Amino acid sequence: MNRTSLIREIKLKGTYLCVGLDTDPDKLPGHLKSHADGIYEFNKQIIDATLDHCVSYKINTAFYEALGAKGWAIMERTVAYIPSTHLIIADAKRGDIGNTSTQYAKAFFDVIKADAITIAPYMGEDSIKPFLEYVDKWTIVLGLTSNKGANDFELQDTGGKKLYERVLETVSTWGTTENLMFVVGATQADEFVNIRSIIPDHFLLVPGVGAQGGSLEEISSKAMNKDIGILVNASRAILYASSGTDFAEKAREVAAGYHNEMRVHINKQILNV
Amino acid sequence: MNRTSLIREIKLKGTYLCVGLDTDPDKLPGHLKSHADGIYEFNKQIIDATLDHCVSYKINTAFYEALGAKGWAIMERTVAYIPSTHLIIADAKRGDIGNTSTQYAKAFFDVIKADAITIAPYMGEDSIKPFLEYVDKWTIVLGLTSNKGANDFELQDTGGKKLYERVLETVSTWGTTENLMFVVGATQADEFVNIRSIIPDHFLLVPGVGAQGGSLEEISSKAMNKDIGILVNASRAILYASSGTDFAEKAREVAAGYHNEMRVHINKQILNV
Repeated sequence: MNRTSLIREIKLKGTYLCVGLDTDPDKLPGHLKSHADGIYEFNKQIIDATLDHCVSYKINTAFYEALGAKGWAIMERTVAYIPSTHLIIADAKRGDIGNTSTQYAKAFFDVIKADAITIAPYMGEDSIKPFLEYVDKWTIVLGLTSNKGANDFELQDTGGKKLYERVLETVSTWGTTENLMFVVGATQADEFVNIRSIIPDHFLLVPGVGAQGGSLEEISSKAMNKDIGILVNASRAILYASSGTDFAEKAREVAAGYHNEMRVHINKQILNV
Repeated sequence: MNRTSLIREIKLKGTYLCVGLDTDPDKLPGHLKSHADGIYEFNKQIIDATLDHCVSYKINTAFYEALGAKGWAIMERTVAYIPSTHLIIADAKRGDIGNTSTQYAKAFFDVIKADAITIAPYMGEDSIKPFLEYVDKWTIVLGLTSNKGANDFELQDTGGKKLYERVLETVSTWGTTENLMFVVGATQADEFVNIRSIIPDHFLLVPGVGAQGGSLEEISSKAMNKDIGILVNASRAILYASSGTDFAEKAREVAAGYHNEMRVHINKQILNV
């Protein structure tokens, strides 16, 4: 899904919600724990229930890899189930020397057929370029993450600018606003104005609302640009809204709640610009 | 495999070679390209041929993921085939927020049953701790990598020290020399003396000899410590020594060549200490 289509979907639907499929077998509702294909069935019902309220799904590869090859097969089937109206993000945090990153790009763009993948920037340009060579896909590079560990390196000063600022500045010259986004955690609201001064036009993938405590109102007001320009992810708050047989219905309610709030923020932004 | 056993293996065998199984379907010998289980068969023969000359195998997850779920199954079977006399490294470059890193640790330590995994440090402490909680496994954190992109961030000054130096200093306080190693590329020989002043005792995983151009003699003389303390990886130079039916024999010859040279460096080091 290209940038124009993504912006159109967001404005038409009035939502920039990304639903994170961090599906944990231990947290499945009881009746699906004993189901032979419980994780896929759970994902399918979550997707069906939330489709109207989001524009994107984010698959956290770790939760599938924890089940081995069987988990990868479930991940592949889950991606295949998501309709092409929604941006599919493989949240994989990959990145390696060039010839290895080429293989990761192949894995997630050609085989899994995701629209986007998250990438760690530590290893620099040749570790990221093989993903950016797919001009009709999205490379989503870690900028400033939502976790406490962001203080250890990302927020360290590097010759007058923080490491994450250097990452945004440098990496943004390697791709375009059409094939490159950045991850910025919702818990980092204080940095959003600064971030928008460095990369005013790029889309941001913003995890960390809900379970991690970020405020949707604050990040929306600080991080939106004229094209809306943000995808806000919620995972646990939606997936595990209920642990009963009504899990999908409750997930839909939580997603609808985000949707309602996002519609207000979008309208405000469109009037302001 | 714990540190004492690893050091004993290295000194007894006279080798610190790690064979990298970056198995690329496009580079298989012709007779295995058409084989129904060609990649596993190739890995099996490479392992059989090189077992006497190395102490470790490194599985590059990208090459298996590029084949989807089927590739993950081949990776699992390959790991299962490697005898417990050899340290098995999952070269996965993972790292995410705490609850996600916990899932990756489960994937590679509990399910795949690797002895070690490589980790990218960008996201800081809580992204690395879940791996270090496995005290009988190894967490191998990227320090200074072998690729050109190392200049973009790893070598940047961060308040009087380079980013990679800060990573070594900081991360080394989170684990011990018994469960934590660092990746340092063989192409970074100029930095090895400095690296050993920061982390004199940790094992280093050193990729980048062979195809990437690092010198085994130089890194051995600069990076070894009293316990030898390095694992030097070669992948393409061994795997693709021949593209014919004699590939395993030729791989063995290349591995034996490294072994012979390493035996000399080990003896020199033991005499010097």
